[in-house]
Amino acid sequence: MALPTSTAQRFLVRASRQLRHYSAPGTGEIPAAKAKYVPKSGTYPKGFLAASEHVGVKPSNTRFDDLALIVSETPCAAAAVFTRNKFQAAPVTVSREVLRRREGDGIRAVVVNSGCANAVTGKGGVEDAIKMGEETDKCFEDGEGEGDDGKGARTLVMSTGVIGQRLPIRKIVRKIPSAYESLGSTHAHWLRAARAICTTDTFPKLLSRTFTLPSSPDTPYSLAGMTKGAGMIHPNMATLLAILCTDAPVAPPSLHALLTAAVDKSFNSISIDGDMSTNDTVVLMANGAAAATTTTTTASNGRPTPRTIAAPDDSDPDYVALRETLTRFAADLAQLVVRDGEGATKFVTVRVANAASYGDAKRVASAIARSPLVKTALYGKDANWGRILCATGYAEGADSVVPDQTSVSFVPGDGSEELKLLVRGEPERVDEARAAEILKEEDLEILVRLSDKEGEEAVYWTCDFSHEYVTINGDYRT
Amino acid sequence: MALPTSTAQRFLVRASRQLRHYSAPGTGEIPAAKAKYVPKSGTYPKGFLAASEHVGVKPSNTRFDDLALIVSETPCAAAAVFTRNKFQAAPVTVSREVLRRREGDGIRAVVVNSGCANAVTGKGGVEDAIKMGEETDKCFEDGEGEGDDGKGARTLVMSTGVIGQRLPIRKIVRKIPSAYESLGSTHAHWLRAARAICTTDTFPKLLSRTFTLPSSPDTPYSLAGMTKGAGMIHPNMATLLAILCTDAPVAPPSLHALLTAAVDKSFNSISIDGDMSTNDTVVLMANGAAAATTTTTTASNGRPTPRTIAAPDDSDPDYVALRETLTRFAADLAQLVVRDGEGATKFVTVRVANAASYGDAKRVASAIARSPLVKTALYGKDANWGRILCATGYAEGADSVVPDQTSVSFVPGDGSEELKLLVRGEPERVDEARAAEILKEEDLEILVRLSDKEGEEAVYWTCDFSHEYVTINGDYRT
Repeated sequence: MALPTSTAQRFLVRASRQLRHYSAPGTGEIPAAKAKYVPKSGTYPKGFLAASEHVGVKPSNTRFDDLALIVSETPCAAAAVFTRNKFQAAPVTVSREVLRRREGDGIRAVVVNSGCANAVTGKGGVEDAIKMGEETDKCFEDGEGEGDDGKGARTLVMSTGVIGQRLPIRKIVRKIPSAYESLGSTHAHWLRAARAICTTDTFPKLLSRTFTLPSSPDTPYSLAGMTKGAGMIHPNMATLLAILCTDAPVAPPSLHALLTAAVDKSFNSISIDGDMSTNDTVVLMANGAAAATTTTTTASNGRPTPRTIAAPDDSDPDYVALRETLTRFAADLAQLVVRDGEGATKFVTVRVANAASYGDAKRVASAIARSPLVKTALYGKDANWGRILCATGYAEGADSVVPDQTSVSFVPGDGSEELKLLVRGEPERVDEARAAEILKEEDLEILVRLSDKEGEEAVYWTCDFSHEYVTINGDYRT
Repeated sequence: MALPTSTAQRFLVRASRQLRHYSAPGTGEIPAAKAKYVPKSGTYPKGFLAASEHVGVKPSNTRFDDLALIVSETPCAAAAVFTRNKFQAAPVTVSREVLRRREGDGIRAVVVNSGCANAVTGKGGVEDAIKMGEETDKCFEDGEGEGDDGKGARTLVMSTGVIGQRLPIRKIVRKIPSAYESLGSTHAHWLRAARAICTTDTFPKLLSRTFTLPSSPDTPYSLAGMTKGAGMIHPNMATLLAILCTDAPVAPPSLHALLTAAVDKSFNSISIDGDMSTNDTVVLMANGAAAATTTTTTASNGRPTPRTIAAPDDSDPDYVALRETLTRFAADLAQLVVRDGEGATKFVTVRVANAASYGDAKRVASAIARSPLVKTALYGKDANWGRILCATGYAEGADSVVPDQTSVSFVPGDGSEELKLLVRGEPERVDEARAAEILKEEDLEILVRLSDKEGEEAVYWTCDFSHEYVTINGDYRT
């Protein structure tokens, strides 16, 4: 039902009253236990800039930046993986279309707001998302003079926050130019941007690192990424967002294949509550800026010069190396999301090994990582292999599971010996004191071997299920 | 790893120390709010008898009966639906084999113990389950003199309780004859048996009713059923069990088809926490006793006499009528399990209507019923259509979901008008006071229409997700 404007406005007023605004600690302070996950410095990819601004998307937010801008100084390749939820938010629709029209090339920026997901907002919501991108594109017109190549917008759009509310688009648009003006490449710039995309997150999630590729070992590349939120983590609130940037030279077809592979073993291998949001988006941008610099400075000295990774090719050592680097990096980034799971007191790695196929291993890992009973047992520090086994047994489609070949162990976070709970379907005598010791720690690995023979392995990261989760997600708006 | 006896014994001692024994209120008293679900009387099927005994399967249980026996006075047809979990408990393996060897006929009894699931207990566990059945069979040898027809055991076996512990089989076997001696057909007998199969249940779940079939409208039939527990409802503890008995005459092939149809829309349409146990079993027995009585007393007066429902046949009015009766009955029984969901404060019907297929409707209903975010919102009395929509959108395989054709409403338990939250993908202005009123009630229906056109419908029953659920399932054994 399309609402007439005044009705829509009344709806918005009501909706904003109706929605509970749970927030991370109101002071914006990072909890002491999480401070170690926030980097004090970083090495950021050349030719990328970051900025943030305060919009006040939620009227109650009078002090924290809630608009972030990540810009490539030159048009770059970009790829994205979006939520598979059938209800896709407007920014998902719009960003997907931008990438489609540009065939993953000529992208300049990602603009992100927190505080409102722009989801289930109809045509008006799509117009708002387009507007956010257009206003960002306008910033490039003066300085860069790229002109219009007929392929339309160059900016990807992301939103995160409550569902069913329209964006305060005029307020947002007003702040885009000042965000653009304040772009910079320092650690502080990146960290502020990472903080601006947060919602109920208790700390900003930012990582960076350097790497080289086999064909040009003298060229240092950088990779930086920020992410926020986990699954559906708020009443009416969506979203896992992630933005990864590298100055390595990668062409669009490779970039998309690399991102898909990396996401499968990172952002698609974590679970907070098993709910998949309407806004989930992971973007990877590659501008080749480091290669460009190296090419001009070293091409004449006879050293190997960087080349663009043109197409996905498993026989190309550069492609394979970058895929590994990117997958590890994305996994580290995704793990930060689990570290910040709502109400979480534990960080649990679920490793399923010796499986007949990677698919089977992942299906079992996912079932264990999602089981409310496994998660409440972990919260209760209960060495409850019965529940782990039970989840293993009902994992849908995991056809190669054979009860009397299945073994379950706890692997302590400190690198000490595993504690066997079940060996080939038979319960072990469990050393209680040892189990209690392992379960006391924040970090823990559940290791399920589906056979004694070497086979495929999948890893999932999850957290426990606490009273606080219920409080955060069930607490009546007051 | 097979343990030598002394080691196995030590394991058992340790295991019993290791396992926390959460129980429903220790006095065995039924909570005031649940008393209304326990019948004061009933009409039970002819030729079936029930009994219970105190074994003390869990040593800590010194007062409550934990062995139940349901017996047909004559050999009867039986069918069962078992858990799809790959880790199947010993009684599941054994009962399945008994039914296979007898081709669903010549069954005399179901013997059930609570307090120990006899799951993940290896070959010894299977021997224990066989022994339970054999000892029950021995009771029939004197009185009935059926003799050995070469098809082996006539008794189905069920167990529920902790996983990974062996049954105290000698203690159980010792009490089977006295249970047999105390068999009876009164309401008190049935109620005691229903109570004996409970574990963390706070009330016994027993229903009975009468019905007729189109071809013999003068013959009154009865149907009785008991059930317990929901999903994985206890640390290391399993199981949904249900036993249904009717005195209508149904041959094995029909019985199996009828039970499968009924379970799909009842026990397979409920969710407490989405975990599927190792022991889940639903048994249906039909002994034709009411028909036998009627045949001899009315055959001579020219009225239509009962006939056996021989084969599944959608053009047979008796078959169709019994399927409807049985499905409704099983649904009522399954709903009692949800009423007793751990920590539940709400009983929620999820109805998905106007779907392209029943499969799609059920997949969406299941996703909503299982979503921790929907369930915590219900606990928090939050009219959170965003989460309902989100679960609708990620329901796996529900390909016919189209966002702008989807509508969501709350239907109050008192029969008053539905409250529309979302109409064809557009948020409604929600009357807050009305929403609060509806969410205050224990009973609530979430109605999702996948289109405006008439189509298939599926119903799921679920409960909310409360602090108490986390306490019950996460509380460290102390």
